[in-house]
This record gives sequence, C-alpha cells and structure tokens, in this order.
Amino acid sequence: MAYLCLYALQHRGQEGVGIATYQDGTVYVEKGLGLVSEVFSSRSKLESLSGNYAVGHNRYSTHGEKSPLNIQPLVFNYKGNQIIIAHNGNLVNLDPIRTALEEKGALFQTSSDTEYIIQLFSHSKAETIEAKMLDALRQVDGAYSLIVMYNDKMIIARDLHGFRPMCIGRMKDTVIATSESCALDLIGAKYERDVVPGEMIVFDGKKEKSYTIHKPKPRHCIFEYVYFSRPDSQIFGEYVDKTRRKIGKILALEKPVENADIVISVPDSSNTTAIGYAQRSSARFELGLIRNHYVGRTFIHPTQEMRDFSVKIKFNPIGGVLKDRKVVIVDDSIVRGTTLKKLVRMIKEAEPAEIHIRIGSPPVKFPCFYGMDFPSKEELIANHKSVAEIRDYLEVDSLEYISVKGLLEATSLPDDHFCTACFTGKYLDADTNY
Amino acid sequence: MAYLCLYALQHRGQEGVGIATYQDGTVYVEKGLGLVSEVFSSRSKLESLSGNYAVGHNRYSTHGEKSPLNIQPLVFNYKGNQIIIAHNGNLVNLDPIRTALEEKGALFQTSSDTEYIIQLFSHSKAETIEAKMLDALRQVDGAYSLIVMYNDKMIIARDLHGFRPMCIGRMKDTVIATSESCALDLIGAKYERDVVPGEMIVFDGKKEKSYTIHKPKPRHCIFEYVYFSRPDSQIFGEYVDKTRRKIGKILALEKPVENADIVISVPDSSNTTAIGYAQRSSARFELGLIRNHYVGRTFIHPTQEMRDFSVKIKFNPIGGVLKDRKVVIVDDSIVRGTTLKKLVRMIKEAEPAEIHIRIGSPPVKFPCFYGMDFPSKEELIANHKSVAEIRDYLEVDSLEYISVKGLLEATSLPDDHFCTACFTGKYLDADTNY
Amino acid sequence: MAYLCLYALQHRGQEGVGIATYQDGTVYVEKGLGLVSEVFSSRSKLESLSGNYAVGHNRYSTHGEKSPLNIQPLVFNYKGNQIIIAHNGNLVNLDPIRTALEEKGALFQTSSDTEYIIQLFSHSKAETIEAKMLDALRQVDGAYSLIVMYNDKMIIARDLHGFRPMCIGRMKDTVIATSESCALDLIGAKYERDVVPGEMIVFDGKKEKSYTIHKPKPRHCIFEYVYFSRPDSQIFGEYVDKTRRKIGKILALEKPVENADIVISVPDSSNTTAIGYAQRSSARFELGLIRNHYVGRTFIHPTQEMRDFSVKIKFNPIGGVLKDRKVVIVDDSIVRGTTLKKLVRMIKEAEPAEIHIRIGSPPVKFPCFYGMDFPSKEELIANHKSVAEIRDYLEVDSLEYISVKGLLEATSLPDDHFCTACFTGKYLDADTNY
Amino acid sequence: MAYLCLYALQHRGQEGVGIATYQDGTVYVEKGLGLVSEVFSSRSKLESLSGNYAVGHNRYSTHGEKSPLNIQPLVFNYKGNQIIIAHNGNLVNLDPIRTALEEKGALFQTSSDTEYIIQLFSHSKAETIEAKMLDALRQVDGAYSLIVMYNDKMIIARDLHGFRPMCIGRMKDTVIATSESCALDLIGAKYERDVVPGEMIVFDGKKEKSYTIHKPKPRHCIFEYVYFSRPDSQIFGEYVDKTRRKIGKILALEKPVENADIVISVPDSSNTTAIGYAQRSSARFELGLIRNHYVGRTFIHPTQEMRDFSVKIKFNPIGGVLKDRKVVIVDDSIVRGTTLKKLVRMIKEAEPAEIHIRIGSPPVKFPCFYGMDFPSKEELIANHKSVAEIRDYLEVDSLEYISVKGLLEATSLPDDHFCTACFTGKYLDADTNY
Repeated sequence: MAYLCLYALQHRGQEGVGIATYQDGTVYVEKGLGLVSEVFSSRSKLESLSGNYAVGHNRYSTHGEKSPLNIQPLVFNYKGNQIIIAHNGNLVNLDPIRTALEEKGALFQTSSDTEYIIQLFSHSKAETIEAKMLDALRQVDGAYSLIVMYNDKMIIARDLHGFRPMCIGRMKDTVIATSESCALDLIGAKYERDVVPGEMIVFDGKKEKSYTIHKPKPRHCIFEYVYFSRPDSQIFGEYVDKTRRKIGKILALEKPVENADIVISVPDSSNTTAIGYAQRSSARFELGLIRNHYVGRTFIHPTQEMRDFSVKIKFNPIGGVLKDRKVVIVDDSIVRGTTLKKLVRMIKEAEPAEIHIRIGSPPVKFPCFYGMDFPSKEELIANHKSVAEIRDYLEVDSLEYISVKGLLEATSLPDDHFCTACFTGKYLDADTNY
Repeated sequence: MAYLCLYALQHRGQEGVGIATYQDGTVYVEKGLGLVSEVFSSRSKLESLSGNYAVGHNRYSTHGEKSPLNIQPLVFNYKGNQIIIAHNGNLVNLDPIRTALEEKGALFQTSSDTEYIIQLFSHSKAETIEAKMLDALRQVDGAYSLIVMYNDKMIIARDLHGFRPMCIGRMKDTVIATSESCALDLIGAKYERDVVPGEMIVFDGKKEKSYTIHKPKPRHCIFEYVYFSRPDSQIFGEYVDKTRRKIGKILALEKPVENADIVISVPDSSNTTAIGYAQRSSARFELGLIRNHYVGRTFIHPTQEMRDFSVKIKFNPIGGVLKDRKVVIVDDSIVRGTTLKKLVRMIKEAEPAEIHIRIGSPPVKFPCFYGMDFPSKEELIANHKSVAEIRDYLEVDSLEYISVKGLLEATSLPDDHFCTACFTGKYLDADTNY
Repeated sequence: MAYLCLYALQHRGQEGVGIATYQDGTVYVEKGLGLVSEVFSSRSKLESLSGNYAVGHNRYSTHGEKSPLNIQPLVFNYKGNQIIIAHNGNLVNLDPIRTALEEKGALFQTSSDTEYIIQLFSHSKAETIEAKMLDALRQVDGAYSLIVMYNDKMIIARDLHGFRPMCIGRMKDTVIATSESCALDLIGAKYERDVVPGEMIVFDGKKEKSYTIHKPKPRHCIFEYVYFSRPDSQIFGEYVDKTRRKIGKILALEKPVENADIVISVPDSSNTTAIGYAQRSSARFELGLIRNHYVGRTFIHPTQEMRDFSVKIKFNPIGGVLKDRKVVIVDDSIVRGTTLKKLVRMIKEAEPAEIHIRIGSPPVKFPCFYGMDFPSKEELIANHKSVAEIRDYLEVDSLEYISVKGLLEATSLPDDHFCTACFTGKYLDADTNY
Repeated sequence: MAYLCLYALQHRGQEGVGIATYQDGTVYVEKGLGLVSEVFSSRSKLESLSGNYAVGHNRYSTHGEKSPLNIQPLVFNYKGNQIIIAHNGNLVNLDPIRTALEEKGALFQTSSDTEYIIQLFSHSKAETIEAKMLDALRQVDGAYSLIVMYNDKMIIARDLHGFRPMCIGRMKDTVIATSESCALDLIGAKYERDVVPGEMIVFDGKKEKSYTIHKPKPRHCIFEYVYFSRPDSQIFGEYVDKTRRKIGKILALEKPVENADIVISVPDSSNTTAIGYAQRSSARFELGLIRNHYVGRTFIHPTQEMRDFSVKIKFNPIGGVLKDRKVVIVDDSIVRGTTLKKLVRMIKEAEPAEIHIRIGSPPVKFPCFYGMDFPSKEELIANHKSVAEIRDYLEVDSLEYISVKGLLEATSLPDDHFCTACFTGKYLDADTNY
C-alpha cells in the first residue's frame, strides 16, 4: 500500500523514492534515485519489504545534495533499535542547532535537514519517546509534515503553520497518513481528517493519542493549490480541482481577452484552470497542444536546427486548431519564463492570429524557504522584469496575471491562512525572511 | 535524430526499441525491451551508435514471441555486408514461403515475419539489390511499411494497400522516412509526401528512385484514425486530430444524449473525440478523470479491497465535477470492455446522476491480421454481445457507437480506401480472411 | 552437471561461457562474456536452464570477434526445431564453402567457423539427420571436437586428426562428452574412452551408434601436453601430469645446470615440469614465486615506477629463497618472451647468484591453425631470434629448450601421432600450410 | 596505488572492499561486496576516486552483519569535514562504552566496532585532533591496526599488543601504511619499519610525529604465521615464508613418518610448510593435488552422487602420483575438520597405500576475540575430540600436530611475544577471557 501511495504522490517528487518497513524488530529498506516505477522495477524489491508497518517517501530535491544517501525514509539506530523518518517540507534556521549538537559530540550522518529532528530527539533529556519527540519538534522552525516509526509506534506531526498538506485516512483497521488525499483514493481508504497544524499524533497498537506541539497558526502554501498538488486531492479543506477551476474563472473576470476564439491549456498542469477560464469566457476550450507522456531523460545536444527542443519533445501544437485563431493560453505560473518562451515560439509556427497569455497565479518574485523548489531570486523572471517586460520577452500580444486578492478569493479559507510570500515577499518574520 | 523520432513514435509500440546505424562498412546496433527512455537510458548507448545513417524501430507486440531477439531493426549478414530492416505491419500467408525456403536449406534466425523478406531477398535470383528486393516484396502478402539499409543505400517500401501510414520528410539534405508526421515535427523536418501504396523508393547518395511493387489499391487502417496514431500527425492525407474531432461531432449528431450536463473523455486517447462531441452537444466539456502519467509496471496482487485497481492506478475521478451530474463519457473504442467496466464502477463512486457512454468507433467484432493487436475473437466483447448486452454488462444508462458510415464520413477519402474489417468482417479475400 | 564441467574446464577458455539445455521441444540458453563464476553468478540463471540435456562451452578466443554473439553453444532454428552446437578447435579453408553457400541464398548469422557446419547440414540433400551431419562434416577441414543436439538426439564428433582431445564418460545412465577427463572426475562420472579421431557418435534415447566420418589419421596437438590441458586429465591415452613430469626429467637430462642450488617453477603452469626437472637434478625444488590468484582484470596505467607491473601483480619472488642462490627456472614454453623478461627482471631484485632458464618445449616458431591462440609469426620471439639471442634478450645466465625428439619421447604414442608444426613448421599439407 | 595494495592484500578479506580518497575538502568513496576485481570492475570506478590521499580496506567478516554498510573505510561527518577510518582487528569489551555514549545522545551509524573509535573521538573533550584520537584509543581494548584520515592529515595506530601486523613503507615522498609488506613490493615501495605496538603516528604535510598510546606489550597473533599472512610478507620481524618452512622442518623432526614415499601439500596454503617438512624427511615433495583457481561462488545442491563436492570443485588428486604410495599430507591447521575429511575421502579414491597427516599448528581449541574468524567453540573439532579421535574421524593412518613449543621455536621472537590463546586458552585476562 505504501508503494501504491507513492505512485499516487509521484508528482510531489521525482528525484528518488524509498520505503522502509518494520517487522519483529527488523527494519527493511529499499531506496533509489528515480521514479517509483524505476526504483521498484521488480517484484522482488517489493517483496523484500516485510512487515505490517511501512513508511514511504518521494524525494523532491530542494536542498541537500542529490545523493542516494539523502533519499528518505532515513533510518537511524537509536539505542539498539531503529528509528525511521520521512519528512516533507524544509526546516530553517538550523546552524545554531548544529553547532550546539556538535559541541556535545554528535556526528551528523547526512546532509539532510530531517536528521536534525532525530539528533535533537536522541539528545533530549525527556524520558519517553513521545516527550523526546515533542522536545525535538519544539526546537525546530520551518515546514514539516512528517512520519516517524520507532518499532511499531507511529508518530506523525505537522508544523504549526501547516505549510504542507497532511491528512489521515483509514481502511478497516489500518491508519494511513499521507500528504494528499489522492493516495487514499487509490488504495480505497477513507479520508478522515487533516492533521491539525502544530499537532503530533502517536499511534501505538490500538491506541491513538494527539499532542499539541504548538498552537496552530495556519500559513498554508498557496502554491499547492496553484500548481503542486494533484487536482483530485483535497487539501486545506477543499478539492484542488475546485479551487483551480475557480482560479480560472476569477482570472477570466479579472483579465478577459476580447473576441478570443479559443482557450488552450499547457497540458496537464493548467487543464483545470484553462477550463475554468473558458467557462467565464466567450472563447471555447480546445486542445491546442499534444503532450508526449513517454518522455524520460534525453541525452541530446540540440543542434541549431533543433532549438526549443526541450519543449518540442514534450509538446506538439495542433496546426488545424491554432491557425488564424486568436488564442488564449492559460498557464498556472511563470517561474523562469524560459519554457514558456519556447512554447510560444513553437506555437507561432502554427500561425495563430494572436497569442494572449493568462496566468493563474501572481508574478513569482521571491524565493521559498519552506519546500517549494524555486530557483534563486535572480532566475525568477518576475523579480527583475515588469509584466510588460515579460510580455515583450515572450513576444505575445498580451500577458496578464491573476491578482493576489483574486487568488486568495478562490480558496475557502481566510486570506491570512495562506503564505503568499513568493508573490509578496511578506515572510513570517520580516527580519530573517523566514 | 532517429532516437528523437522514436520518442515521438513511442505510442506505436512500447514493448521494445532499437536503433541500427551504419558507418564505413560497420553496423552499430543497440536494442532492448522497454521504452525509448529506458533502453537509451545513458548517453553512452546513444554515442556508441556511430554513422550518418540510422534505422530505428519501436516494437509493438503482435505476433512473434516477446523476445529481445525479435526487437527490430533486425540485422542480417548478406555476403559479407550487413543488411538492416525495420518493419511496421504484419505479413500474412507465410507458411508456403517458409516451407519452400527451408527445402532450399535456409536457416531462419528469428520468429519474426520480417525475416521472410530478407530470406526471399537473399534467395532471389535477380541481379541487383533493387531487383532482389522487388522480387522479395512481390512474394509477400499483408501489411508493411518498411525501411531497409544495405550499406549506405536506403530502401523504403509500403504495401499496395497502404494499411499502415508512412511518409517522407526532409531536413536540408537529410531524408527521413517515418510512420507518422509527428516525428518530423519534433526534429524540425518538413513533411514532403506519403509513400504511395505499392511504392518502393531507393535512396543512394544523392540519387533517389521510385519503383512500383504493385499498382496501389488503398485499404488504409481506419483504426489509425480512431485510436492508434497521434492526433498531431497527418496520415492518409489528413490530420488525425481533425478527423477525430469530426468523429466526435458526427457521433454527437448520430447518438445525442438529451439534457446531459457534462461530456468527459477518458484521457488522453479520447480527448479530441470528446471535445468534438461536446461541440455538437448542449453539455459542456469537463475534466472528470485525472490521469496519472507516472505509472509504469506495477507488481501488485490486488486484494479484494482494491478491486478495479488497474484502472485506479491510472485514473482518479474528480468528485466535485461528477456528483449528481448526467455524464456523457466519450471513449474511442471498446475492445474487451473490461477496463471500461472498471472505469464505470470507479466513476459511480463519485455518484453521478446518470452515465451515458458514446463510442467513436463501431463495435469491434473481428480480428485484425495487418498489425492491430486485438485479442482473439472470443475476447472481443462485441463479437458475442449485442450493444444492449454490453450496456447491461457495463451497467450504464445508455451506450451507443458511431456507425460505420458515420466513421467513414469523418475521413477525407472515398469509403473503399479504408479497411473496416474489424467492424464488418469484410476482409480483402473472403476465403482466406486475409 | 554441465555447469560443473565448465568449471573444471575453465582453463580451456576464459573469454565467455554458455550453456544450452533442451526440454520438451524448448531450448533454454544462458551465455555471457567472462568466467563461469561471473556469467553464472546467480542461482536463478542456472535454474532457468530446464531440461535433462545440456551442452556447455567455454570460449577461448582465437578468431571471430570478441562478441557475445560468438559465445557458444550456438543455437539455430532448423525447420521449426532448434539445433545446438558447441565446438572446440578451428576449421580451415572455409572461403570456398561460404561462397558456394551464399550463392544458394544462405544468410550467415555469426562470424564463427562453427556455423559452417550447421549451414552445410541445413543445405545437405541427405535424408536423415545423421546422414546430413556426416555430409557436412566431410566437407570441412581442420580441428573439431564437437557436440550437436537436435531435440533429444545428441551427436558428438571429432576430426580425423584428433587435434583436440575429447572423451566420453558415464554416470549411471548419463553420458558425458567432454574435452578433458578432469570434468568427469569433478562430477563423479567414470571415464569410458576417447572419441576416436574421425568418429561420429549419435545418442538417441537408449540407442548409441558410431559412424566413421573419415579413417583416423592422428595428429594430436602436443601443446595440450606442454601447457594447455589440466595436469589431472588423461588425454591422448595418458595423464597429462605424468607426461609433463617426464618432460621435466628428459629436459633435466638433455639440458642440465651444473651445481644449481634450487629449481623453481612459474606457478602453477610449470609446477609439474619443474618437479620432474628437480627429480633428475641435484638441485632441490623450492617455491621461489608466490602467485596471487585473486587477480582479475586491472585498470591501471603503470607509471615508470611500476614497470613490470603486469607480472608483479601476479607474482612475488621470495627473497630468502632466491638470494645468492644459483637458480633454475623451469617454464613450459616461451611465446612472446615479454612476460618472462619481466619475471626475470623482478626475480633479479631478490639478488640470486645466477639465473638459468629451462623450457619444457622446443622454441615456438610457427603459427597454429587448429585452435591454439598464438600471436602472429612476427610476435613469436623464436621466429626471428636464436636461442642465444633470446637468452641475451632475457638477460639470464643460460637458456635451453627441450628438443622435439625429447618432447615426443615423453609421450606414450608414436612420434607421427602428434602435430608439432608450431615448432617445426611441418604442417599437414605443405602447400596450404594447413 | 591503494587499489593495487588491496589486490596484494586480498587474502586478508574477501567479503568486501572499499577505497576512500580525499581532495580539496571532498571525500570520494567506492565500496562493494566481493573481491577487489569484482568491485573495481571498471576503469570509471577507479577514476572517480580523485585525490592524492587514499585509504583502502578489504573486509574479512568476523562480526558485524554482512552488510554493504559495514564495508570499510567508514566515512563520518565531523563538524562539517569528513573523517575516514579503516581498521583491521577486533575491539573487545564495548558494551559499557556504547551505553555511556548513548546516554549522551550519540546515534550509532553502523554495527561496526570501528565506529566506537570515531564516536569516542567526537565526544572527546580534548582540544586537538591528535589529542582527541589518543583519548579515544586509550578507552578501547582489543586489536587494532588502523588508518584515519581527517582532511589531509593521516593518522595510523596499532594496539599495544600488536595483535595484527602493520608496517610503513615509502616510495619517494609517498608514505604507505599497510598490514603486510607484500603490498609494498607490488607497488615498488620500500619497507621502512613496523608500526610499534601502542604507537600512533600522525602525518601532516611533510611533518611526521610519533605518539605513544600505551607502552608496548607484544602479543602477536601466531596464526598470522601459520596461515593468514602471505608467505612473501615480513611481519613481526621475519618473512612468513621462512617461518613457515621452519615450522615444516620442526614438524618433520617432532612428528616424522617412517618410510613415507611422498609429502604433499594442500595447495596453496600449506605449500611452504610441506616443502619444509619434505626437506627434513626422506620422502620427496610431490604435487598430489591440482587446485582449480577459477572457482567462485557455486550454486549447487550436490546430489548424493556428488558428495564431497565442495572439495572436489577446488581440488583433484593426481592418480599416478598417489596410487600405492605411503603419503604424508601436510596441512597448516585443522579448524572444523570437515574439509580435511572430504579431502581425505577424495584422495582415497586414488588408492594410496597409507595416509598420514601432519599439521603445522597445535590443535585449535579456543575462540579468537582479536580478529581471526574461527567458528564457535562447539565447531572447533579439537575442542571436544582428542587427537586420536580426530584421526579416527578423518579415517587416516596417523595424525600428528606440531607442539606449541615447536611452533614458537620457528619464530624469531621470545615466546611471550605471541598470543597462542587459540591453542592454549590462555587469554590476556583470565577473568574476561580477553
């Protein structure tokens, strides 16, 4: 089941994948760089993972080197037993913790921020496993949705801001904790509830006990709605698909295109936003780009003849649909802008009459410290170009973004429950930018 | 470039892939079971393929065992040189040829029908390479779009019925022969023309010469339009996308659903047909199913709790879109019906008000001998069930197929230019069923 | 059992190894480049080889490219069945056969001389399997000890000269045909008899029938006694160990070293010859060189400091044994002389008083066409240097070889039963040098 | 060079191998289960190890699971740098150290005793690297010959008893520390001196400084002379070959065999001892057993017909040498006795007149805690059987061992400089048996 959940959550990380299981005092681990289907490419690998308890993780590289060592779940020896941990999100402000621990003699085993939690746990003077874990979690800042297994005891926890999603489901007697509810659907489990921000829950045999790490202070990552989560998941209290369609509709009202003929998406990430846009527009939704889903890694030095190759291998425009039409391309976001530029250039070969781009998020201007893998500030096109300049760079007839207000309106929670720092630069703590 | 073309043509075969190149008297070959990205998973494999001439092939298993030996291109030693062959389509009526060749002492190297062409070539008493090849091709029946390389001479040929598509493109001085034009788009080559049914073309240095194997008698496989080809390719004189949208429109007119709320596709294969349907319907097009494109091979014995698992791992219905709606599901075809049944069952969990299925091809009742990998007659659901019975089997509110006439109308060629034997049972030769 | 026999025969070929088995109409094959222990490195590979009939082969590269394709046993489709062949020895004079077969349309599948036998078999007009095989074998010249399996019929054959050894053993009802008797010892089978030169034997169920391909005319390869065969095998009617000890004794009598202190071998190939030498000498046998048997392939560009590295990684001289002693080094043969030169240079670092080399075979001056992998004439040091010149090249105090007469005297067969062409240049046919 | 040294030292451990190198702040590591030639089977693996400093290790499994994790060198992060350690020998009495460290919060990363040294180092309150290491080493008991690299500082150390050998060599400016001097010979380095028991030496750039961990109290492992070290190494002040030959001579004098015909060894481990024996005996040395050096792992369930298979695949007796002879078999030691029993049974098939066994070490009756991988007490045949009983078990005409006194006499150091606990049960500390 852990393996299947990882399949359902593959979009959250493609760098590597691992599963650790526990049975009768022994921990079994299989990990590797690559997709779930690549790493678990033989039945024997799965079958080697004995036990009734499992923790799985898809790695999305943010920081920490791209090394097999950093693929999670991480497993540590703790007083003769093994402790398993899997973590989504990024911790911040770690240097003082490291210095203090190393002064005590601690040897760090990985370059992962996740290890800090286990080191703090191990060095805690608290007496029980639960108290040690609370002690550790109260010392770290940043984003974490995490699962810890210590023998047959499962501990799940979420930071007080609830940056990343995390929910619990149940299938008969089995509890499943997962980042997104779509994993529950796949295995036929029933969604039960979100883990509360700042909550730690311990499952021990039939017992289940909730602890408060910190009082909740929600700052959900709005980019999960914009792009990252799967449309069929419910996170932060609402289906992503529904929110995304609403984004499209608000975008259409805020930034219409007069007399457009067709609305197309950049499949598959902006499909729902584009459909929402088309539903509040007089233009009709069309499939203007075919996406080749077989693409894996390619080993090509494109020649001059093959420019825009990286886009072409994924997308092909459909001439008959685009030619001589006034086209609205709806995309979810612009980060560097380089891919979109190539896409536009490729679409132009199909000779549309006009190209208008509408974006389902405000300009991304600032880095994220909580787990979204944006490039450096300098590489964020909106950090140093105005909307008009980006339009010129893309060489399109118009370019418009949804407003921050419009985006927040598409959600079903109060505005201050979301982190919008990547658009606004307003981080939790104005001094540290964390 | 051959490698890139294979990427673009991955949908035509996922069992295995190979490339053979020629340089200065030496042939280099790399092959393997799996996808292009799996087999050519390292730069070194590509770089080992020296030369200015290349032949590539994606294997789609029809007959011949699933063995690395049968992955094409096949390479044969012929009088101290090597001859490369790649073949799309199936030959028929081969037993008498094999018996005759074996009586002469021939040793067959593979279980592939493709080898017959080379054996006939090698045993031909004709004097030139070209004459030997014509001699060989005139002795075989069935479907073939093929490329042969003998040293730096490239021979391409297509059977007189033109069952499978094949076209030529050009990029500066480079000629590219390919099954579908989408491969030309990817590498930036220009589509020139289709290979005429019954035509053999020989490229030798700058020279290019066309031969007539047989007078053309077109019987294009209409299933290429229905399902097999990529929407952005032009085959049989028309863009697939355009034809497929037209199929959707004709289907909507022939088999409307009154007062439907939404039209959904089974992504991605019926997207265009569903959009076409929605454009001639009062219901609006919606994304009702999310497709997980990361799915590779899975190694799971589904338990009882996980029934319909094979469908669930690929698709997840979006509750908010489907609930209480009168839904039209447009699919391209029904072969066995088992997948669609699971899909319907899964969709019902989202509690739509009604489910109506519309199919963009007539009932598939008869086997194909020319390269479409249908199961045996007994497994074709429409071979032994009426439309009403299939509807009951699927447990849906209605089920309708497009008519043969309607389907042919969606094309831009005369009706008798297509093979519709899988729907009608009318094969070329009523006696042999070939 | 085939796998074990290949272990015992590993010294006959280290380039690659393969086993083919037959069961109920199916042939199973596993092959690979490398040693038996490398290729059959997992139990599953062995277990995949079902059946009660097996043919194995260790490849020793003589001609034919170093390609996985040429690893034997070769398997050919013959009229719907599969025919397996494994061959030790080299065929000669093949060009006219190839031309004739290709004129008939034959396609050669490998670059192996072994395939000619199957092609001739397949093109034979004889009526039975046995007659076709006799027909084929009568058309080829050269050395062959071979095993052919056609379904459950096993055919073994040996050329009329009996260049390479081949014998039959039995274990209960199981017949084992093998190059050397040491393979029988390992599996506990009983040696029965040598295959007669020019004999073909067919085993078919309980039946066993002997045929005469040609009247025998023995020309056994004397190098099998000198170096190639394992000492514990009996070939050509005598134990190799016994013959080799006798070579040492005759060498000691022919070419003594006055007042030598110790006799050392180059382990392990000249151990027995050196012991024989010591037994007819006043010097005592000592271990002067330690051989490191763990050496596999090494990937080193030796620097200047590390000259003679290729020898040093295999051998280390024992200082205490050699220092200030008058040493006789007994080696089995000198081919290029380069290794021995390095060995001598290395031994000199241990500061022996004198170094005298005695060789258990005459100077190797001419190439072998029957399966011994000597380098080209130009690389054979004795082809262009006199014994005195070789001695000077090696920088030793004396160098002597056994005489051809002495060598033949060590065997138990008439002199003209051996091929000594590599020493004398007297080939079977003075014109063709074959 | 590290790679070559590992080749030379392959006999000290075949379970796994690793090399770590250091360059400009980065540590490169390659490790794997298997032999040097298997793990470093491609040039690229070697070439990936950049740097001018290298530490290599062959793993010999004593305790710690057979896991890739335990293959050395181990690499630890220490305050942002990496520390490399390779260790020969076994530490004892570790439980109290672990408990104390874990109380402080330490997380152990491996199940290796070697890690304790680094944990103690990291938790040391001493100020310099050197002082911390001395502090750590003074807290552990048992056997260690070890190399530590911290950035470009190399630290080598040997326990006060000098259980395992360790020496230093030099090649121009390069210092090489190695277990046995044969590694120096291979690379052309010059042996300089043994590391003194209880000595720690630090190499830092051109500087080299010796520290005393403890005052030396030699207890060298005499089994290194008997069996473990390579004959061409000098350890504990003498060449192994010389000592082993002397063991053979003393054995011949202590336990002669009247009127024996031949003396044979069990190649290659008892070759020198057997030669020494023959030199003080009237019987002559002969090669009675051929050893097949190609043997790797075999995957065979021997059937009844193949009993003694594990011995047969390695050895084959030479009939002509043994038949009707009164044979003395000289072996270095008897541990379980099972292999020797099979060997005797196999030799009997060659029908010798009598078999007399002479052993170059006293009966092994007690376990080793310092790094020799003996089985449990119960499996040591001499622990529960008298010499007469072992003789009967082996079914030979006589069996005799060298005396402890005789064995010590063969060395060139005082008797109390050796540990003979495996023969006598006299451990360093009578209470703990350590």
